[in-house]
Amino acid sequence: MFKGVLAELQKNLRLLPGVGEKTAQRLAMHLITQEKELSLRLAESISAAVNAMKKCSVCHILTEVDPCIYCSDYKRDQTKICVVENSQDVYLIDNTHEYNGRYFVLGGLISPLDGISPKDIFIHELLETINSGEIEEVILALNPSAEGESTINYLAAALKKYMVKVTRLSTGIPFGGDIGYSSPVTLSNAFKRRFSV
Amino acid sequence: MFKGVLAELQKNLRLLPGVGEKTAQRLAMHLITQEKELSLRLAESISAAVNAMKKCSVCHILTEVDPCIYCSDYKRDQTKICVVENSQDVYLIDNTHEYNGRYFVLGGLISPLDGISPKDIFIHELLETINSGEIEEVILALNPSAEGESTINYLAAALKKYMVKVTRLSTGIPFGGDIGYSSPVTLSNAFKRRFSV
Repeated sequence: MFKGVLAELQKNLRLLPGVGEKTAQRLAMHLITQEKELSLRLAESISAAVNAMKKCSVCHILTEVDPCIYCSDYKRDQTKICVVENSQDVYLIDNTHEYNGRYFVLGGLISPLDGISPKDIFIHELLETINSGEIEEVILALNPSAEGESTINYLAAALKKYMVKVTRLSTGIPFGGDIGYSSPVTLSNAFKRRFSV
Repeated sequence: MFKGVLAELQKNLRLLPGVGEKTAQRLAMHLITQEKELSLRLAESISAAVNAMKKCSVCHILTEVDPCIYCSDYKRDQTKICVVENSQDVYLIDNTHEYNGRYFVLGGLISPLDGISPKDIFIHELLETINSGEIEEVILALNPSAEGESTINYLAAALKKYMVKVTRLSTGIPFGGDIGYSSPVTLSNAFKRRFSV
């Protein structure tokens, strides 16, 4: 339907998560019909963000400043380190205000099927960090998926020789969830991890 | 939750239609975590599209080439002109393949409440086009809203002195719609315009 620059714009918009052909069309039309200045500002802020974000040299989170705001905040509990798959998980966890320790971004999960071995993610760097720091607890905040479990098992074994407590997030029925719609594994986990009220 | 360039990106993404705070956050994270090249290409195509699109000097549609592909296509029926509010409506109507005549973009609808008078939209240019051309039918493809009706009434009166047929789009229950969920005005229009089967 679109041609030239508009077709190109639509194609690039379709790469965004949750954006299909129709939405891309609507977004493209919006971008060329709204005040020109606003669209150019969006384009600039995409480039600016992409170009400004780099990996924190300490925890590997995507950050504008290095070290990141978490690593440079010494008021945070330096005895705890929360290990996550990616940067977004740091933002999400920090937003709960449940945790005030350090973070470490693995940059992926071990997945033999996808050819991702322990060497392909920052496990070596994590162990070094734990070795050199004053860490007492390592919280493995990884997805309860096949890849997450593999990574948790691998890390739990690798961390045995360090004098640290290793924990993982609770598994169970999500808040607001329905037992009738829970998978057998979720339900089984919820039973195993039942607690006194 | 976000800071710096990321917060700025999220703010600019929120101006897109249908994008709230959460979606803007997700899009921003996606843009900085996906392959850098893809995000920069999106940014460039936004700027390119915005800068390349101009108004067709004949019909006022947003176009990369002037005159636009519709105005320069003499195989289209030159005796019909379809009057629409904005460029997107041209794309949508043309996509139905129901119509193969000329187009004319008004650039808005008459709306005294918003301070838009007939002088603020391209009515003068439309009348000139009709006067100078070989137009036999003017199709007013405008929204059946208060502003659309005002504009249709105004144009119908202004077109009286030209020897042209003036039509408007049918109003009624949308395909797949439900009588029970139709507004009284829609239902009343559907009744008024009922046709033999």
